[in-house]
Amino acid sequence: MPELFNVLPPASALKVLLDHLPVRVRAESVSTAEALDRVLAESLIAPSSLPAFPRSTMDGYAVRAADTFGASESLPAYLSVVGEVPMGRASDVKIEPTQAAVVYTGGVIPPGADAVVMIERTQKLDATNIEVLRAVAPGENVISVGEDVKVGEALLAPGHVLRPQDLGGLMALGMTRVKVATRPRVAIISTGDEVVPPDVEPGPGQVRNVNTYTVAGLVAHAGGLALPQGIVRDSFDALLSVARAGLDAADALVIAAGSSVSTRDLTADVVNHLGKPGVLVHGVSVKPGKPTILGVCQDKPVIGLPGNPVSATVVAGLFLVPVLWRLQGVDEPPDRRRVTAKLTHNIASVPGREDYVQVKVVERDGELWADPVFGKSNLIYTMVKADGLLCVPLDSNGVHEGEWVEVSLF
Amino acid sequence: MPELFNVLPPASALKVLLDHLPVRVRAESVSTAEALDRVLAESLIAPSSLPAFPRSTMDGYAVRAADTFGASESLPAYLSVVGEVPMGRASDVKIEPTQAAVVYTGGVIPPGADAVVMIERTQKLDATNIEVLRAVAPGENVISVGEDVKVGEALLAPGHVLRPQDLGGLMALGMTRVKVATRPRVAIISTGDEVVPPDVEPGPGQVRNVNTYTVAGLVAHAGGLALPQGIVRDSFDALLSVARAGLDAADALVIAAGSSVSTRDLTADVVNHLGKPGVLVHGVSVKPGKPTILGVCQDKPVIGLPGNPVSATVVAGLFLVPVLWRLQGVDEPPDRRRVTAKLTHNIASVPGREDYVQVKVVERDGELWADPVFGKSNLIYTMVKADGLLCVPLDSNGVHEGEWVEVSLF
Repeated sequence: MPELFNVLPPASALKVLLDHLPVRVRAESVSTAEALDRVLAESLIAPSSLPAFPRSTMDGYAVRAADTFGASESLPAYLSVVGEVPMGRASDVKIEPTQAAVVYTGGVIPPGADAVVMIERTQKLDATNIEVLRAVAPGENVISVGEDVKVGEALLAPGHVLRPQDLGGLMALGMTRVKVATRPRVAIISTGDEVVPPDVEPGPGQVRNVNTYTVAGLVAHAGGLALPQGIVRDSFDALLSVARAGLDAADALVIAAGSSVSTRDLTADVVNHLGKPGVLVHGVSVKPGKPTILGVCQDKPVIGLPGNPVSATVVAGLFLVPVLWRLQGVDEPPDRRRVTAKLTHNIASVPGREDYVQVKVVERDGELWADPVFGKSNLIYTMVKADGLLCVPLDSNGVHEGEWVEVSLF
Repeated sequence: MPELFNVLPPASALKVLLDHLPVRVRAESVSTAEALDRVLAESLIAPSSLPAFPRSTMDGYAVRAADTFGASESLPAYLSVVGEVPMGRASDVKIEPTQAAVVYTGGVIPPGADAVVMIERTQKLDATNIEVLRAVAPGENVISVGEDVKVGEALLAPGHVLRPQDLGGLMALGMTRVKVATRPRVAIISTGDEVVPPDVEPGPGQVRNVNTYTVAGLVAHAGGLALPQGIVRDSFDALLSVARAGLDAADALVIAAGSSVSTRDLTADVVNHLGKPGVLVHGVSVKPGKPTILGVCQDKPVIGLPGNPVSATVVAGLFLVPVLWRLQGVDEPPDRRRVTAKLTHNIASVPGREDYVQVKVVERDGELWADPVFGKSNLIYTMVKADGLLCVPLDSNGVHEGEWVEVSLF
């Protein structure tokens, strides 16, 4: 338990956690067609050049550019049309001086030709002769071999999150399978004697499970797979047994703790029994979220979230999300959308603590305003009503009404 | 064919298309646990209040606030502890004047009590008596019934895209199923005699299919389901038959056209044969993407994309993406992430046309710069290398080096 019970600033706490995780990224091969939003786990190198043949970018005539030099409407160049290059086939004509061949956009430039004259810049004289009304330079309206990608060129690096156009680009080169990071599986346990499943009518003093579903959503957005482990009573033996099974089945474990002090200590005890080094951080200087537990057991991250829904969501965003990206080989998690807005009310804070404040973003007279959604941190609907979070930094006393703030949108 | 062959500005073209679509949103009931990122298709009203009982936000003692008035370290209030409220159960004690009961965070406030004193603000005298070292106000450290949500309160409106905390909020109220818009199914056809599937080694003059996969990725990001219909030769009968089957099986049809003029006309002919009103817009004043076809057949949107990959991606982003959101009842599609950056090179444009320019976003001396990735629009890897698009507006002559521009990130 090297750093047990140190209350650390969020950035330091995250660093401690990440530094204890293995560097190796688990990877699997998937069909490129199914690889959207997955994280690339290999360096991709072009296996061939693209295009593989010189292509026309216009409908028109493939020509030798030199034959068109000086051509104009008043002094056209005369060329004889010796054939047509059909789409999707090699050319069976060769262009000699003063010859041309019909080509279509995307079609092969026949041997001998080095440019294409747009059809609109020509005039047909008869069945086999045309006038060229404007000169073309060598290479004009032609994509040369390898102009898009050259064989051996580096395409994409490990850690890149695959976008729609990346899939298209890989398919263009016949790379129909790619190695991507496996989705980290996250076992999620909710604890608390008062917690019942959402489909159960709560008895007196009981509440429905919220955190499993909120955390599962954050896991999915970070590329992971949530493995909900149900609700566990506040008992060391019960929690240890479910936690052990969850950790075995998954790549990471989240325990959304009961909210009272005793159950928080229970979580820390359980984490320390799951494997070395156990609890690394117990307490983070963040509001909400101070009673956060960060640990590593059996080389897997284990995160104890505060039980109340807002704290659990903020803390999962601060620690679980970057950990899941790191497990996929991404050091800088994809940024959330941000907007800059003016603050509608003063927010007090305390130096030495990062405060995360839920805000609604509203437009007034053409300006964006960040309107804090105040509420006790136990209220899940403050988060439902909010559009995003603003962070009051560690060293700040607060932010004043009218100041510009940056809001990370949900 | 009411507006056939009018070249329209992108915003007008989109409006024509949307105005011809039915307003009705198709909906289905899904498990709330599976509803992440789905679009809500009903108004949600709280079926009960949250919390359903007054809850403590602290570990401590439930008291009558009046009994603590004036209490301080030097002059504590003396209370007798008459019991403990266990988590997840009703209280079997009632608090009379000068009495207190042990409560835990999230536990029930027993009848008679109206506030909670934190345990840290008390001192134990003996087994049943405590000193209260600080006064509490009525309601302090208590969440009252309905403080989070009141029964009958409007929660979320149709068109809302469900976020992690929304799922948690619904679960808290036992709303384990929700009505969401069905995912629009999008049939995607690639045409062109030169196009072969990605797993085929292209022969001379052949290229692999790119657009099906790029468009499928955009469809997935917009909440839709891509139904790839393969590659169709440049023949009216073949295209009509595959397009008809695709449109029957789907809620929208995309034809990524062959690139030559003749195949574009083919697409328009086919769209006009699929049903009324057929082609609505043929040609949009956008670069790349001028030969775009927008139509509605059998009340379903049909979009003819230009064949080259960059144009196809830009046009799908401009028209297909907002159409798919609209089919799910979302009028303002979720914004892409944007950054503001300085332009590294002059970009020329022509008034009367919107230009979309691919840029890489790079940091130099702490400033963000948008560096145009120039390249013929047929080059798929310009898009792979780019981080986003900047739009040169309809009425602009271009943008100068050093000007601030807004980049929509991919």
